[in-house]
Amino acid sequence: MGSQQLQPLPGFRDTYPADCAVRTYLCEQWRGAAGRYGFVEYEGPLLEPTDLYRRKSGDEITAQLFHFTDKGEREVSLRPEVTPSLARMAAARSRDFRKPLKWFQVGPCFRYEKQQKGRSREFYQFNCDILGEPGVAADAELVALVADVMRDLGFTPDDVVVRVSDRDAWVAFAASEGVPADRHQAFLAAVDKLEREKPDATDAKLRALGTSLAAVERFMTRPAAASQKFEALLADLGARGLDGFVRLDLGVVRGLAYYTGLVFEVFSLGEGMRAVAGGGRYDGLCELVGGSGAAMPACGFAMGDVVIADLVRATPQANARLTSYLSGAFALDAYVVVADEGYRLRALGLVQKLRTAGFRVDFPLAPAKVGKQFQAAEAAQARLAVVVGEGFPRLQVKQMLTRTSLEMDEPALVGALEAARGGGLPPGAPLIA
Amino acid sequence: MGSQQLQPLPGFRDTYPADCAVRTYLCEQWRGAAGRYGFVEYEGPLLEPTDLYRRKSGDEITAQLFHFTDKGEREVSLRPEVTPSLARMAAARSRDFRKPLKWFQVGPCFRYEKQQKGRSREFYQFNCDILGEPGVAADAELVALVADVMRDLGFTPDDVVVRVSDRDAWVAFAASEGVPADRHQAFLAAVDKLEREKPDATDAKLRALGTSLAAVERFMTRPAAASQKFEALLADLGARGLDGFVRLDLGVVRGLAYYTGLVFEVFSLGEGMRAVAGGGRYDGLCELVGGSGAAMPACGFAMGDVVIADLVRATPQANARLTSYLSGAFALDAYVVVADEGYRLRALGLVQKLRTAGFRVDFPLAPAKVGKQFQAAEAAQARLAVVVGEGFPRLQVKQMLTRTSLEMDEPALVGALEAARGGGLPPGAPLIA
Repeated sequence: MGSQQLQPLPGFRDTYPADCAVRTYLCEQWRGAAGRYGFVEYEGPLLEPTDLYRRKSGDEITAQLFHFTDKGEREVSLRPEVTPSLARMAAARSRDFRKPLKWFQVGPCFRYEKQQKGRSREFYQFNCDILGEPGVAADAELVALVADVMRDLGFTPDDVVVRVSDRDAWVAFAASEGVPADRHQAFLAAVDKLEREKPDATDAKLRALGTSLAAVERFMTRPAAASQKFEALLADLGARGLDGFVRLDLGVVRGLAYYTGLVFEVFSLGEGMRAVAGGGRYDGLCELVGGSGAAMPACGFAMGDVVIADLVRATPQANARLTSYLSGAFALDAYVVVADEGYRLRALGLVQKLRTAGFRVDFPLAPAKVGKQFQAAEAAQARLAVVVGEGFPRLQVKQMLTRTSLEMDEPALVGALEAARGGGLPPGAPLIA
Repeated sequence: MGSQQLQPLPGFRDTYPADCAVRTYLCEQWRGAAGRYGFVEYEGPLLEPTDLYRRKSGDEITAQLFHFTDKGEREVSLRPEVTPSLARMAAARSRDFRKPLKWFQVGPCFRYEKQQKGRSREFYQFNCDILGEPGVAADAELVALVADVMRDLGFTPDDVVVRVSDRDAWVAFAASEGVPADRHQAFLAAVDKLEREKPDATDAKLRALGTSLAAVERFMTRPAAASQKFEALLADLGARGLDGFVRLDLGVVRGLAYYTGLVFEVFSLGEGMRAVAGGGRYDGLCELVGGSGAAMPACGFAMGDVVIADLVRATPQANARLTSYLSGAFALDAYVVVADEGYRLRALGLVQKLRTAGFRVDFPLAPAKVGKQFQAAEAAQARLAVVVGEGFPRLQVKQMLTRTSLEMDEPALVGALEAARGGGLPPGAPLIA
């Protein structure tokens, strides 16, 4: 027992209220945007059979699986991502739902990897997927949604772009270069590492596959010509006014083995220069998980909370939105001051009435001097301090911001709070004259 | 590969949108009530050192631990409850926060136990705790909150009561009967099983401890006299008008070893006759987890989603509230019908404008006959179907409920949707004349 237990496990974190409010902000933005796009929320289990991930997700993920043997001798894993669970869910009940499915999810995922900035072993992920629609309009809907999520968070095309690529275009290129079909995954892996590996090493790998770095680089210079899907995608996003967020870039391959067709990532243009979300089409996964009867075209993307929160903090106008949200996240509508312990039960009655009317209200659980109680009201960012004591049911109501006070009765107090809640008054405006 | 993966692990469940909406409803009610009471949200890790639970939580929980050895040879457990993590968090930064702390949490917990109705291995829990306040006012605030949560869900004192007991009263009784101090936990365990064990077996156990079933039953008949805390608690809840939900009942002990002082449980009076939430005071836990410098009085309660959802479904007026919520949970504000593919890009522009204005909007991703699109609008519970085609920018707007149609332009459409959102119109009222 004792102090060694004051630490969470390596890579895990105690989320204190200030950090929890940041996550809540992200979750609200995610749920809000997904809802506007007509997506509905689902959730999968946090623990899954390890087989669900093996051979499906590519080395990037299986090397980082948080896996165990359970008491029933089952090989189990904390989920590293949600897409395989979603594929199972869609496959298991594919006939029960009208297509296309537009489903989203928000919840924890786990990776057993080295700790570094922005990478913890436990993180929250936002997943949006469209199942049952093979056309590029589904990919465009997802790219539009992820762009709108970034816009909601306060990012502009100067901060982030959605880099869009097409694995099919690469496969067609590889075939035209004579790369054998069973080497296409190796070819894609080599292209995926282009930006991170030395040119000589990449060239050697590509030559062993029957092509070359020079040929690959030549192909990448004209992305618009590489895929017929790009034109439809750009027209779709242009009609929405979101094409400013989109950049064709064949350098994006995305590591996961199950992707087919269009792939994309949200890329931070600031000093971070990294992907903060990614996705693509995975037309084969439902069949792989559920058998041939479950085949269904699908595409989706995922965004993690830790990486995006770092980017929000580092981007002034995004950080300003977050800060504005946080400034109101814990604010009380009223703090009820018990000026005289003989009035405590009457104060409790008032507290209850205000809470039942929907207001955030607190009060001192233990007797305290009035000055101390006003300090507590201040610390709790209470809009009003309502003093209960002699003169009850008349109340002394003090607006904390303006330090103006007024005597009123309970119905007048409720009326003033309701007027403020109705949006008739800006956050800092005087509630009482 | 294949069909064996169509199943989640035993005790785990795929949460499809209809069930996810039920959980979202519960979470919104929980967060709403906790917020009104001035609680702020935190979260702990889902995976913890197994030592955090051993010897602290009592047999009830440690026997059901979902524990493993991780890749780093650490003994780890999926958390069965959140209170030990909270105690660590509070202990680690006890000087950083103004007391009392009023913190809540909503998230998954895990128990490796036999599956039965209302008990799965993965469930969501709502935790509310007050730390740093020793007085009964803190216990009363929690009892009031849990009663208000039940009231928000549609329950009345005819459906559920909060049974309140006092472990200190039992300890005093045991001492007066001559039960040795090191046998008090065994005594409490025997009382805890009173309702579930045969009287003969209980009596034998109690006699071995130096008392008897008859003495225990006599003590239980006058609960109000057993504890001085009860009077203050009842006065507090009476002032809030919530005493109808409260029943003194010394038969409640709550299994967890770390409880001290007042304990309580929300008990369903219907055919279920079971506890659906429980809590109490645990003044020693912060010190046990964080060392003597971290000692802090504390109390709290927890409520799980599975058990409470079952009770909501089984209680007509609670189920009616849930059903009303669910009926609007997936509804779209508008479904944009693409009457002519030549107008698709213009339809996309309209979709984007409506979504940016905050409305839930969907449209067909693939070309489809107009009749099919109206079916999709119907299935998606769209309030309006907005037909884009010849005549654009004039739009044919059909109110799905009344089947009335009107031609209008985009600003008029946005105005009508905003009027409906502002609450000026009840859900079923005609949006357009």
